[in-house]
Amino acid sequence: MTAVPADAPDVVRSAYAQLAVTDLTAARWFWVGILGFHIEYEDADFLCLRGTDELTHHSVVLRRAAAPALDHIAYRVRTPEDVERAARFFGELGGPVRRVLKGKGTPGVGDAVRTIDPLGFPVEFFYEIEHGERLIQRFDLHRGAEIARLDHFNIATPDIPAAYAHYTSLGFGCSETIEGDAHELYAAWMYRKQTVHDVAFTCGAGPRLHHLGLATHESHKVLRVADVLGSLGKQHHIERGPGRHGVSNAFYLYLRDPDGHRVEVYTTDYYTGDPDHETYRWSVHDDRRRDFWGNAVIESWYKDATPVLDLDGNPQPVADSLLDETAAKVGADGLG
Amino acid sequence: MTAVPADAPDVVRSAYAQLAVTDLTAARWFWVGILGFHIEYEDADFLCLRGTDELTHHSVVLRRAAAPALDHIAYRVRTPEDVERAARFFGELGGPVRRVLKGKGTPGVGDAVRTIDPLGFPVEFFYEIEHGERLIQRFDLHRGAEIARLDHFNIATPDIPAAYAHYTSLGFGCSETIEGDAHELYAAWMYRKQTVHDVAFTCGAGPRLHHLGLATHESHKVLRVADVLGSLGKQHHIERGPGRHGVSNAFYLYLRDPDGHRVEVYTTDYYTGDPDHETYRWSVHDDRRRDFWGNAVIESWYKDATPVLDLDGNPQPVADSLLDETAAKVGADGLG
Amino acid sequence: MTAVPADAPDVVRSAYAQLAVTDLTAARWFWVGILGFHIEYEDADFLCLRGTDELTHHSVVLRRAAAPALDHIAYRVRTPEDVERAARFFGELGGPVRRVLKGKGTPGVGDAVRTIDPLGFPVEFFYEIEHGERLIQRFDLHRGAEIARLDHFNIATPDIPAAYAHYTSLGFGCSETIEGDAHELYAAWMYRKQTVHDVAFTCGAGPRLHHLGLATHESHKVLRVADVLGSLGKQHHIERGPGRHGVSNAFYLYLRDPDGHRVEVYTTDYYTGDPDHETYRWSVHDDRRRDFWGNAVIESWYKDATPVLDLDGNPQPVADSLLDETAAKVGADGLG
Amino acid sequence: MTAVPADAPDVVRSAYAQLAVTDLTAARWFWVGILGFHIEYEDADFLCLRGTDELTHHSVVLRRAAAPALDHIAYRVRTPEDVERAARFFGELGGPVRRVLKGKGTPGVGDAVRTIDPLGFPVEFFYEIEHGERLIQRFDLHRGAEIARLDHFNIATPDIPAAYAHYTSLGFGCSETIEGDAHELYAAWMYRKQTVHDVAFTCGAGPRLHHLGLATHESHKVLRVADVLGSLGKQHHIERGPGRHGVSNAFYLYLRDPDGHRVEVYTTDYYTGDPDHETYRWSVHDDRRRDFWGNAVIESWYKDATPVLDLDGNPQPVADSLLDETAAKVGADGLG
Repeated sequence: MTAVPADAPDVVRSAYAQLAVTDLTAARWFWVGILGFHIEYEDADFLCLRGTDELTHHSVVLRRAAAPALDHIAYRVRTPEDVERAARFFGELGGPVRRVLKGKGTPGVGDAVRTIDPLGFPVEFFYEIEHGERLIQRFDLHRGAEIARLDHFNIATPDIPAAYAHYTSLGFGCSETIEGDAHELYAAWMYRKQTVHDVAFTCGAGPRLHHLGLATHESHKVLRVADVLGSLGKQHHIERGPGRHGVSNAFYLYLRDPDGHRVEVYTTDYYTGDPDHETYRWSVHDDRRRDFWGNAVIESWYKDATPVLDLDGNPQPVADSLLDETAAKVGADGLG
Repeated sequence: MTAVPADAPDVVRSAYAQLAVTDLTAARWFWVGILGFHIEYEDADFLCLRGTDELTHHSVVLRRAAAPALDHIAYRVRTPEDVERAARFFGELGGPVRRVLKGKGTPGVGDAVRTIDPLGFPVEFFYEIEHGERLIQRFDLHRGAEIARLDHFNIATPDIPAAYAHYTSLGFGCSETIEGDAHELYAAWMYRKQTVHDVAFTCGAGPRLHHLGLATHESHKVLRVADVLGSLGKQHHIERGPGRHGVSNAFYLYLRDPDGHRVEVYTTDYYTGDPDHETYRWSVHDDRRRDFWGNAVIESWYKDATPVLDLDGNPQPVADSLLDETAAKVGADGLG
Repeated sequence: MTAVPADAPDVVRSAYAQLAVTDLTAARWFWVGILGFHIEYEDADFLCLRGTDELTHHSVVLRRAAAPALDHIAYRVRTPEDVERAARFFGELGGPVRRVLKGKGTPGVGDAVRTIDPLGFPVEFFYEIEHGERLIQRFDLHRGAEIARLDHFNIATPDIPAAYAHYTSLGFGCSETIEGDAHELYAAWMYRKQTVHDVAFTCGAGPRLHHLGLATHESHKVLRVADVLGSLGKQHHIERGPGRHGVSNAFYLYLRDPDGHRVEVYTTDYYTGDPDHETYRWSVHDDRRRDFWGNAVIESWYKDATPVLDLDGNPQPVADSLLDETAAKVGADGLG
Repeated sequence: MTAVPADAPDVVRSAYAQLAVTDLTAARWFWVGILGFHIEYEDADFLCLRGTDELTHHSVVLRRAAAPALDHIAYRVRTPEDVERAARFFGELGGPVRRVLKGKGTPGVGDAVRTIDPLGFPVEFFYEIEHGERLIQRFDLHRGAEIARLDHFNIATPDIPAAYAHYTSLGFGCSETIEGDAHELYAAWMYRKQTVHDVAFTCGAGPRLHHLGLATHESHKVLRVADVLGSLGKQHHIERGPGRHGVSNAFYLYLRDPDGHRVEVYTTDYYTGDPDHETYRWSVHDDRRRDFWGNAVIESWYKDATPVLDLDGNPQPVADSLLDETAAKVGADGLG
């Protein structure tokens, strides 16, 4: 973890994402039944979900809506004062800043600030959140993919250097990148907590949410979710994998929920908490960067993503990407 | 698999065990909820259970009774004629032979023959049995220890050479033994199907049932059942393990059901189907024979076992063991 | 296992394959270093390899040659008399029959008979074979994919009904098939030992060897071999997978050796030893048949295969396939 | 991670332990061959070892000596100034403080400060350390237990509240405790990095080193090291386990190296980085606290430990424990 710039909020970690889904029953089948999330709260409009290792109220919130979208991603900050600091920080950046008082926003969350960040994403910062019963050793309740915790947000954005600069200004470190011959950035993985990432950028039309990264404890749990989907004749929910990422070393499986939201069920990354942790740089020409085994990336994985909403719930406009990683035709991994 | 002696029935495999249990609800919690058996049939008195890989009606039958016991172990034979052959074979041995017509005995089983074998055990031979829906790839229904199939019976008997001789006369091969300095037999593992065993003999007071061996597919499934029992505060159902057996190479965990019946949940053995498959002999002084990692055997594991019933449902008398393996005090493994 | 027809040799199992390779050093890197086979015998021309669970001399033999090919597949039979029976059986079928005396053929193998079967494949039958040291529990020597044993031959052949009929005449049972709407056979899996198969038929130009199926004990061992190949920058040896087959339930990974010979490293199948074991039939339209998770099959997997030699070492002519499974365009699995 | 007290050094994590061993060849067999550590540096007197995920020079240093002992444990601090802060902090506590210049102390480490802490342990603080080649994805070099990283020190100390107070003054958080009926502390687990612990205290005669905690990625890697030791007839190096700890949720195996130094090979803990992370308290009467499956603790595990040296290399005197956890006779877990 790098030091926090003086004016920036001290972000602890990626905390939760709120997704708009069109059918809470179908979403529940997927997120609870298949992924194994635990329901911490539900009403007619919301489902608040938590992984087995998570001690705070939720890491995924599903909101009933007319169309699929990302409401916002949310970062937890270190102190209540950091919520104020977030308001000032994003106010100075010129974005809209909206205070959401406890009880008025997402269930379980205390006073929060929401903004549209310079990349066009709706982002919430909060300190206070309710805690939940410890489920770490409630093995009797673990099921499906046995998701332990939300690990990261992967966002599709047209301008990777801009995304890198913005998150650097928030004190995020950079664990890995994909770079071209002239060191132009195709993708970057950035962190506050001591893992490979809290947020990563996929070069593409944006702002859109590429996927939520969900950690589970061992590789057999990743395989099981694929087996179960096959059993049910729901194998079309499997988009890509299983495979080993070059970047991050994650053993991964990409799924699409009933609304098309993408999740990565994965296991294994590594500790990044040392003060001089160095960025590991992949060449865009290394066909192991996206799949360490050289398997081809599915086209939809590069192209599809979830639209994001502004603070009033209207879709954010989408801009085309400046670079196209799929044009780097190398081995099985490029799309050609 | 060795050739079948001319007068003996052609045994295919250990097929099922029928256990008397005192509380079907409690037994169901254990066998269905914890072990993951599927219920193929149930009524007020019987619960017929099947593992995920098993295609015949059941491999474990639980019968409601006043006291815990083994009703009988059952072997499937190759043809209907082998049922007749079994009747003649055991009749000539002087034991009681009882014909149990389809519909009059255990649910799902066709015409059968029951006897008390020379070792004092109640044994059934049958050919016909109902088939069940294929669950191998119904991963959505797999739960608990995800038991795939019954693998073997382990019986406690005072005279191991006599047990060895009897099963040899039935055409069983011998995969492994535990032997003393003068090659006196302390234990033996014998098979018809192409695994390490269908039946094994533990030297001890008998006739009693030592345990049922239940196969699951990977080691993490063995660990999970222990985790779940700990979660529920039911850790006293764990008697021994997990560990690796020297004999058979099984990665094992021994559990006791609510009535004290012992099961071994295990994974990994090896193919024994070649015609010249050789017996592998362990010295009783090798402290890896019972646990390849040298961990001590729990005393109850050697001492406790399930009483067996005669054909009229009365307890068979029990004789003391001729040899005592626990007297072989070697390293961690002997009890001293 | 079905009964053996009166005139047919009693085949115990698929025993070994002898492959012609162009560079023994490169082949050794792959088969020993990556797959983890143990070298039982080597000289300037031969490398005899054995898996960790195998107790006979070898299951794979690599022979130094000018061009890659299959020398022969070999089945072990139950008795020395069955070798004679094989000679008569194939003689009556009209194929060439050649006796190979102990010491004159493949190292470690006793008197054998070689023939070209009606499908055009070079096949050896033998009873006698040297035994090797037990490695099952020599975990200190296990490495790479920790291959436990050769499980099956998968052969590419143009006429699946003809292949099915021939192996049925040898007493093989059929565990699974892929069938069209009019029950036309696209593929079949047939066995003598109590697993899903000893031999399987892939519809394609033939006679050619599609792959050797190699069993390992747990899914993480399958994943490890892919990781190691990625580490070494040898990911192009990975052709397809990992994935779960619908047919056979195997968790698989297909690799190509330095000469292009294909191997399947897999884990998990199921017991087929009951006398009334039923064939499980997949529709060619079920996109889970080849990958239970609906992932697309790589085109080379259907198209490439190893040429086979006649008894004099000359390439067998290849005929085109009668059916084309890849024309069944269903979901991700067909090629279109 | 809690905030760092103003006068205390900002500790990043437990970084390495330096052990005195009597035979570097024997130690190398164990630490490199069995555990899978990579040798980063060696000379006639030192062996510097690193796990597969570790990017700094070493996490374990073995020093050739006449008798087994702990030279020192070492914590990495956030900045060079924190090394100075450590010197002041421990100087004010009245302990000896010795500066060890780069090149004069442990190979690979920059300027450091060594002290004897109030608990009697030799402790080093450093910022600068050489980096090593990234091995995370060098799967071809991973072997044995595939140790990924040193996770924690477990120290035997007679006065747990004193240990707790000392590490609290250094800004360590407390993840878990074992407590008596009156909340008297029997044991505590404390952390700076975002895992369950960097240091833990076992109530016992001390100062002594109880064990080094070594993380590996999946449970099958823990099992493999036990299998390999059994293969080699070295099963006496296995002291306890495998099992699941109640505290920390680690799946563990305790080994003793050729000098008797104890290591825990384990997998799975959980994230503790949130600012309001709460301490989880176990009752000393819960027989799942030390083994979640209720298996008995081996007596030597409570009694044996490694002596520690003062800054001149002389053994520190040992005081008896104030409390005896083994007197809490509960179920299988107490020793009675």
